[in-house]
Amino acid sequence: MKDLSLTDMLDKEDVTAMIIVAKKKAGLTWAGIAESIGMSPVWTHSACMGMNAFSAEKAAALVALLDLPAEAAAVLEESPTKVWEQTVPTDPCIYRLYEIVGVYGPTIKALIHEEFGDGIMSAIDFDMSVTRVPSEKGDRVKVEMSGKYLAYNAW
Amino acid sequence: MKDLSLTDMLDKEDVTAMIIVAKKKAGLTWAGIAESIGMSPVWTHSACMGMNAFSAEKAAALVALLDLPAEAAAVLEESPTKVWEQTVPTDPCIYRLYEIVGVYGPTIKALIHEEFGDGIMSAIDFDMSVTRVPSEKGDRVKVEMSGKYLAYNAW
Amino acid sequence: MKDLSLTDMLDKEDVTAMIIVAKKKAGLTWAGIAESIGMSPVWTHSACMGMNAFSAEKAAALVALLDLPAEAAAVLEESPTKVWEQTVPTDPCIYRLYEIVGVYGPTIKALIHEEFGDGIMSAIDFDMSVTRVPSEKGDRVKVEMSGKYLAYNAW
Amino acid sequence: MKDLSLTDMLDKEDVTAMIIVAKKKAGLTWAGIAESIGMSPVWTHSACMGMNAFSAEKAAALVALLDLPAEAAAVLEESPTKVWEQTVPTDPCIYRLYEIVGVYGPTIKALIHEEFGDGIMSAIDFDMSVTRVPSEKGDRVKVEMSGKYLAYNAW
Amino acid sequence: MKDLSLTDMLDKEDVTAMIIVAKKKAGLTWAGIAESIGMSPVWTHSACMGMNAFSAEKAAALVALLDLPAEAAAVLEESPTKVWEQTVPTDPCIYRLYEIVGVYGPTIKALIHEEFGDGIMSAIDFDMSVTRVPSEKGDRVKVEMSGKYLAYNAW
Amino acid sequence: MKDLSLTDMLDKEDVTAMIIVAKKKAGLTWAGIAESIGMSPVWTHSACMGMNAFSAEKAAALVALLDLPAEAAAVLEESPTKVWEQTVPTDPCIYRLYEIVGVYGPTIKALIHEEFGDGIMSAIDFDMSVTRVPSEKGDRVKVEMSGKYLAYNAW
Amino acid sequence: MKDLSLTDMLDKEDVTAMIIVAKKKAGLTWAGIAESIGMSPVWTHSACMGMNAFSAEKAAALVALLDLPAEAAAVLEESPTKVWEQTVPTDPCIYRLYEIVGVYGPTIKALIHEEFGDGIMSAIDFDMSVTRVPSEKGDRVKVEMSGKYLAYNAW
Amino acid sequence: MKDLSLTDMLDKEDVTAMIIVAKKKAGLTWAGIAESIGMSPVWTHSACMGMNAFSAEKAAALVALLDLPAEAAAVLEESPTKVWEQTVPTDPCIYRLYEIVGVYGPTIKALIHEEFGDGIMSAIDFDMSVTRVPSEKGDRVKVEMSGKYLAYNAW
Amino acid sequence: MKDLSLTDMLDKEDVTAMIIVAKKKAGLTWAGIAESIGMSPVWTHSACMGMNAFSAEKAAALVALLDLPAEAAAVLEESPTKVWEQTVPTDPCIYRLYEIVGVYGPTIKALIHEEFGDGIMSAIDFDMSVTRVPSEKGDRVKVEMSGKYLAYNAW
Amino acid sequence: MKDLSLTDMLDKEDVTAMIIVAKKKAGLTWAGIAESIGMSPVWTHSACMGMNAFSAEKAAALVALLDLPAEAAAVLEESPTKVWEQTVPTDPCIYRLYEIVGVYGPTIKALIHEEFGDGIMSAIDFDMSVTRVPSEKGDRVKVEMSGKYLAYNAW
Repeated sequence: MKDLSLTDMLDKEDVTAMIIVAKKKAGLTWAGIAESIGMSPVWTHSACMGMNAFSAEKAAALVALLDLPAEAAAVLEESPTKVWEQTVPTDPCIYRLYEIVGVYGPTIKALIHEEFGDGIMSAIDFDMSVTRVPSEKGDRVKVEMSGKYLAYNAW
Repeated sequence: MKDLSLTDMLDKEDVTAMIIVAKKKAGLTWAGIAESIGMSPVWTHSACMGMNAFSAEKAAALVALLDLPAEAAAVLEESPTKVWEQTVPTDPCIYRLYEIVGVYGPTIKALIHEEFGDGIMSAIDFDMSVTRVPSEKGDRVKVEMSGKYLAYNAW
Repeated sequence: MKDLSLTDMLDKEDVTAMIIVAKKKAGLTWAGIAESIGMSPVWTHSACMGMNAFSAEKAAALVALLDLPAEAAAVLEESPTKVWEQTVPTDPCIYRLYEIVGVYGPTIKALIHEEFGDGIMSAIDFDMSVTRVPSEKGDRVKVEMSGKYLAYNAW
Repeated sequence: MKDLSLTDMLDKEDVTAMIIVAKKKAGLTWAGIAESIGMSPVWTHSACMGMNAFSAEKAAALVALLDLPAEAAAVLEESPTKVWEQTVPTDPCIYRLYEIVGVYGPTIKALIHEEFGDGIMSAIDFDMSVTRVPSEKGDRVKVEMSGKYLAYNAW
Repeated sequence: MKDLSLTDMLDKEDVTAMIIVAKKKAGLTWAGIAESIGMSPVWTHSACMGMNAFSAEKAAALVALLDLPAEAAAVLEESPTKVWEQTVPTDPCIYRLYEIVGVYGPTIKALIHEEFGDGIMSAIDFDMSVTRVPSEKGDRVKVEMSGKYLAYNAW
Repeated sequence: MKDLSLTDMLDKEDVTAMIIVAKKKAGLTWAGIAESIGMSPVWTHSACMGMNAFSAEKAAALVALLDLPAEAAAVLEESPTKVWEQTVPTDPCIYRLYEIVGVYGPTIKALIHEEFGDGIMSAIDFDMSVTRVPSEKGDRVKVEMSGKYLAYNAW
Repeated sequence: MKDLSLTDMLDKEDVTAMIIVAKKKAGLTWAGIAESIGMSPVWTHSACMGMNAFSAEKAAALVALLDLPAEAAAVLEESPTKVWEQTVPTDPCIYRLYEIVGVYGPTIKALIHEEFGDGIMSAIDFDMSVTRVPSEKGDRVKVEMSGKYLAYNAW
Repeated sequence: MKDLSLTDMLDKEDVTAMIIVAKKKAGLTWAGIAESIGMSPVWTHSACMGMNAFSAEKAAALVALLDLPAEAAAVLEESPTKVWEQTVPTDPCIYRLYEIVGVYGPTIKALIHEEFGDGIMSAIDFDMSVTRVPSEKGDRVKVEMSGKYLAYNAW
Repeated sequence: MKDLSLTDMLDKEDVTAMIIVAKKKAGLTWAGIAESIGMSPVWTHSACMGMNAFSAEKAAALVALLDLPAEAAAVLEESPTKVWEQTVPTDPCIYRLYEIVGVYGPTIKALIHEEFGDGIMSAIDFDMSVTRVPSEKGDRVKVEMSGKYLAYNAW
Repeated sequence: MKDLSLTDMLDKEDVTAMIIVAKKKAGLTWAGIAESIGMSPVWTHSACMGMNAFSAEKAAALVALLDLPAEAAAVLEESPTKVWEQTVPTDPCIYRLYEIVGVYGPTIKALIHEEFGDGIMSAIDFDMSVTRVPSEKGDRVKVEMSGKYLAYNAW
């Protein structure tokens, strides 16, 4: 324990703070960072927030792009413990998503059962995109989710 | 009050129960009902569950298709009060959607702000589809949401 | 709607009540019912409680074994909506399991990450057994769970 | 109070932080640490997290292995106060275990009553293992729990 | 299912209601009932409330004493699912006990650890009495609890 | 405010921390401290935890025994504000007590009403002991509570 | 059980409903009922709501005054289980009292400690009145509470 | 921002801490402070705790009496944001008040409606006192509240 | 109790149900009902929902307009107990109002303090209107609230 | 990361604290600040609290007016994450608004549906004012809200 340095104590929260400052200083966007490291914007942002784990290769790419301390790479590769504090999110932008789950959750469930059988859409073998769709009545946000169908096991 | 009949007291919960029984007896699917009345499966199921209001024309079509009592039409046209009892849904299929909001909600928010500015995706001027995507590693559930971008007002 | 019979309205809760009465009258055990229909005791009990869906074949076997009304079979085959009312279970036998998740949950997570990588044990592609292990210091309950490892997707 | 040193104030949280840093620097795994001190991986990790108490012998072994300050040993031997902050865990890996308790808790209870009588599986006289089971359809996580059966007293 | 009688559907709540009425009509006390069936008042009341399971012998004694329907005996012998609805009890008499746990819980824990080691007092291998202690300054309620010490397992 | 010293700011939490360190350094037990100051172990521990107020005499005795700063005495004499953060305690040793209140609370209430009338056991005019009872089948923890009976007033 | 009549099943909720109807039909006020039975309005209303127990004499007086069934008297004499469902009351008139406890609770506590020592105001040996105080700026509601001071025991 | 001093950052919490220390050093009581500044003890304590706002005159008087920094006066005059963290207070002295609201809240409401009409007792145009009432059976705490009656508006 | 009729048992919930049916059968709107009885639409709807009390004159007018049973009038005149079950409303239309309180509540408070002093806007001496404001970019909902300013009392 | 300065780490909470101090030192009001930067008082206060985003122009105006560090401007322009910690606000001034939503929320919903159809009042395309209305019976607070009507989409 005698040779303990500051960077031995880095955790995902520290590295997220470093990323936010470095991104602002560099004038980058999340879409730009994502393109630079060859991943999608959704995954890149969530992993930078500490909600997903980087591969060694992608961690190295991010450290290089943003000039982070070398010790940050190992932290980026760690499996995160995913915690959200608000059972019901208060931010209006996020609450609308919660509301959609409340209103349409039983419908998504019913249509999965009708089309696939007794099972669920995985949130682990999962990907998502957020894009802009131009429209004359006002542009629209398009959120596309894709998760593997997992059938319940009977034994 | 003297000429009060049973159907004067019908509410959305009663009509939902009627629809479920009639659907089972007729051997219909939600997709089939939706096609018959010319609406999407997601909207049709949620409206049958009492989570959306029918237009007069669509209410009449559903009543005819499922041979519901005539009084059901007015109930289908009423604006629903949308209530869900579980703050955190326990059903695994619906919970996975809640989990996605917990894990990726801040990411969707950040990408909307980056792409559109300070605002949200509407959950009112909104539509959604659920489809099956074949895949060699196991078919996938695709959920597509589209909501109008609403910018915050400053005054 | 004119030919609506009582059994059109049967739901999983009704069928569970029928099963419990029939089991008591027949003097059967859960292990015995499970053996009769060729499934495990854990799955059989949970499906009888309305927490899992029967295949057509197994539903027919249960209906025959317990002399249930024919309409119960379709109900047994429906995909259940899994609801538990108590966020923290009060029954001491079930609470101990909740306590184990509280105390050892982070440990199971850490060992999965160490052995497999960033992912989870599936609760869908999952099976479980409960057995008795004789011991001189007092017999022990053995609970064995097995779930497919699911790796987080990066995209 | 005049000769109070820093290590007089060490608590379990401090020692856990020391262990995590020392483990990372030494390039050890939990399984490796467990083997070195002659305990199981599950127990070792939970005790290092401050969720179980070390015997004097095992505390000395861990302090030696990881080169911790000598004062850490007494802290490792203290009886922990076991606290978890999230009534419903949000991390997906841990939530799946909570979900299993919600779905299968009443089943485990029913099978214990059927096999043993009116009682519970102890969470105190208890042990657990987490292992990898190879499978062609994807390797599986196996969790085995064993707790002493405790019969309710009547008096 | 054809020969289903009312008493096939009896559950513990029904039998508790029968006991309360029968006790009132017979002018019995809990202490008197307990003495008649040869058990303690605490256990007898809690078992009559559906919080503990009767042995066959004691169930028969209670059925005879209170002239309950014969079918009640089997219900009394069932293992109960122990549920309390109020996380914090509002009744002042019960709340005071909750308050004692809040104020003195950590103290009881510390003294158990000091006297016995790392473990708990069992709430399963447990008994309790409530008695009156005369005192010049006003009589006192004495509650005595006794539970087996269970040491934490290390493995 | 000009002559404000550090010890002017001492609160009960600070003094509790001092006591814990001093007790460890002195190699004392709670039972030993209690005997030295002439109070019971339960009261002594709870008062040291800041859950009860010392008399001037007992505060002086504790300060002398543990060589605490003189200013600690006034803090020990203050009436505490009794706060517990967890509505349902998670520590297994304390949870068992909460469970006992949930399972047996209505029984204790019923027996008090039967024996004394409409009233409660005071948690203020109250004392408690925790002792070890040897037993061949494993030693037992005995918890004895005594509180004054308080009758409800009618006016 | 053979001679079970409806009134054997009366509980406090039933009797409260009877009182409310009878009071309305008789055109009585709570103050008038209280005067008739020789008790205070606060106690009388709370006891009629099932929140306090009648003496035999007062129960007989109320039964006579309101022409209740004879069996109601025994129910009025039972010790109530005091339950309120809303942790935070929503009715504005009751919420204001909750708010007063939130804002002034610590002040009442501090002044009790300053005036009496370490103890509380009893809510059991307690009485209360609600009266109207004329005032030119608008009449005022006066609530007077009186509870016995109970000193904490040290042992 | 260049000339920012420490006292610019003072908030009500800081000033409360100063008051508590100054009061202890000066050996004052709340009743004594109240008398010195010409206000009641209840209002004085609650305002010192940051739960009410001082007039300029009273703030100056308190600052002079306790020799607080001059900048504290402006803080004492600010309108407070009244926050209490515990929905249900755990301190026994404050909990008893909460219990009184739970048990007698509906009664106070009923008597206000009977005496005044449809309205409430104001918690804003409100005052309160806490006094000691000698009694042979033990002194009593008297709490008197007075709030303006506010009638509901109809429009 | 011998001459108890059904209408003696009417409560506000029953009368609300009668009003809703009668309104539908008569083809009336809330604005129309309000105009007929000479009150505002907001007050009329809330009072019909059981959230406000009618004067005798207005109750008679409503009973006549909707041909309600005569006994309904007394119920309409009773002071309501205002209860809402959802701490956070789920219906999107009502949630938006809750969100406005969350986002702008501290702002409304600050501006009231700046303009009026230390006090609040009354929710009792209060009125409100909801109107439609035509706009080229889409019509707007206008909600106007007016409540008497109440200054905090100091005493 | 080498040239990281303090102001790189500024977040909205820091800037809010700066604004409050600067406002106090400058002797400004919220109304005055709003007028200076050409926005409304409601929007200005909420944006200064970090609940709304400034345009570049308005951020520059505020920084100049209050002599804030230049780096504050970029922070003021960021899209906020809107968080409120108290599900039910305790401050009486804000609670009254919550109470209004509880009491009148369903009424506002019903009148919107009657006047506009199935939809909501937007909380995003939204503005609000708070003004003083003189009245002989005591001045009144007027809160006016205006939000765009959004109709539910059917698809």
